[in-house]
Amino acid sequence: MRNLLVTIAYDGSAYHGWQVQKNAVTVQEVFQNALERLIGERPDVKGCSRTDSGVHARAYCISFKTESSIPCRNIVSGLNTYLPRDIAVLSCSEAGDDFHARYSVLSKQYVYIVHNSRIRDPFLKDRAFHYPVRIDEELLNKEAQAFVGTHDFSGFCSARSDVEDTVRTVYSFSVARRGSEVAFTVEADGFLYNMVRIMVGTLLFVNEGKIAPGTLAGVIASKDRARAGKTAPACGLYLNAVKYPQE
Amino acid sequence: MRNLLVTIAYDGSAYHGWQVQKNAVTVQEVFQNALERLIGERPDVKGCSRTDSGVHARAYCISFKTESSIPCRNIVSGLNTYLPRDIAVLSCSEAGDDFHARYSVLSKQYVYIVHNSRIRDPFLKDRAFHYPVRIDEELLNKEAQAFVGTHDFSGFCSARSDVEDTVRTVYSFSVARRGSEVAFTVEADGFLYNMVRIMVGTLLFVNEGKIAPGTLAGVIASKDRARAGKTAPACGLYLNAVKYPQE
Repeated sequence: MRNLLVTIAYDGSAYHGWQVQKNAVTVQEVFQNALERLIGERPDVKGCSRTDSGVHARAYCISFKTESSIPCRNIVSGLNTYLPRDIAVLSCSEAGDDFHARYSVLSKQYVYIVHNSRIRDPFLKDRAFHYPVRIDEELLNKEAQAFVGTHDFSGFCSARSDVEDTVRTVYSFSVARRGSEVAFTVEADGFLYNMVRIMVGTLLFVNEGKIAPGTLAGVIASKDRARAGKTAPACGLYLNAVKYPQE
Repeated sequence: MRNLLVTIAYDGSAYHGWQVQKNAVTVQEVFQNALERLIGERPDVKGCSRTDSGVHARAYCISFKTESSIPCRNIVSGLNTYLPRDIAVLSCSEAGDDFHARYSVLSKQYVYIVHNSRIRDPFLKDRAFHYPVRIDEELLNKEAQAFVGTHDFSGFCSARSDVEDTVRTVYSFSVARRGSEVAFTVEADGFLYNMVRIMVGTLLFVNEGKIAPGTLAGVIASKDRARAGKTAPACGLYLNAVKYPQE
């Protein structure tokens, strides 16, 4: 039995996230259909994270066990033939028996893109959050350092979650501008439900003066969702990279 | 009576080009609907060019005459409220009485984007032509200079056209790479039907060795459509800039 690690990129606009759902098209279902067409089996595929409807991925990792003997490079080209054009397989490699796309994760990096311009850009529709108020990226980059470290992030988690352990370690958080786009880049050992989107929304509250600079550590420590900002829209969020132990 | 010049950008993926058609949604129709909602009249709007289904615009110019007294800045914000998110109004200004978005054009610049990579990019779906064969951009940039100058481009025009004058002056043509994207940028006093897409397809034939380097001048002079390359797909084409006389 081989254990394979496949990395894909997808534009999430047309999908209800990764995980299979009734009555909604998801990336997992579309991926499993293409895989079944290629290898003639329908293995239980493991995704590196649940992602929400409309969230994108530049490098989403999937593992599955298979009896298939198709070489990795042909799995890449074959899946790309069967997948729709808003999903692409970037790579495929052999993984150790114990490897699991979700449980083996060391850290994940998300990027949140804000299009910061008075006038919207038609080419960023569904690809970035259009936010016309001028962003002070230096201020927000400084403020965002309050998130770095090990904290109980229960104030940065949407209600529908029932995770017991709400402590996560954020390794880095940066806010940087490139022209009219501002990128919020965060790496952590894991994320609570909607955590990145609430962190970004909270920084935008700082930008608007609704939360005073220098007070974010207190907002985090309060564990009070009502003290954080709004959940930023899904369309700006990209799963950018996933780290696993070297094999 | 005011004569207004409005510049818009649009993602053409969902539209059958600019010009109003029966049984197909066009940018012109959607623009006229938004304009009518805003100013309460439905003027005859003039577009700077016909564009094909799926072609995009970063700066498409429109002129129309109106009795409306709404200031230009409110026309920009008002139209952006009523237009769908894949069209944006960039600017509005007062033009002289004789100005006409199409007849006053001095030159237009198009950019054609090729995504030159073995594996497709989901985020460039409908936004670039995915072409996996490695492009020699230096060779093509050199070859493209054969297009520059005043030529009869009747060999670079699709059959359904019945224009009498097929002579056009190409002011510049460059082929340049940025990472995995190769941009073909051409400026001319005017373009025949599908001219840019056939020029790009012809350069790709040179890239593939189907047309010998150094022979493009002969292909142009032959006025023979069969000697040029394939028409490159619409999705890679962007109307990038339009020049008018200074007022």
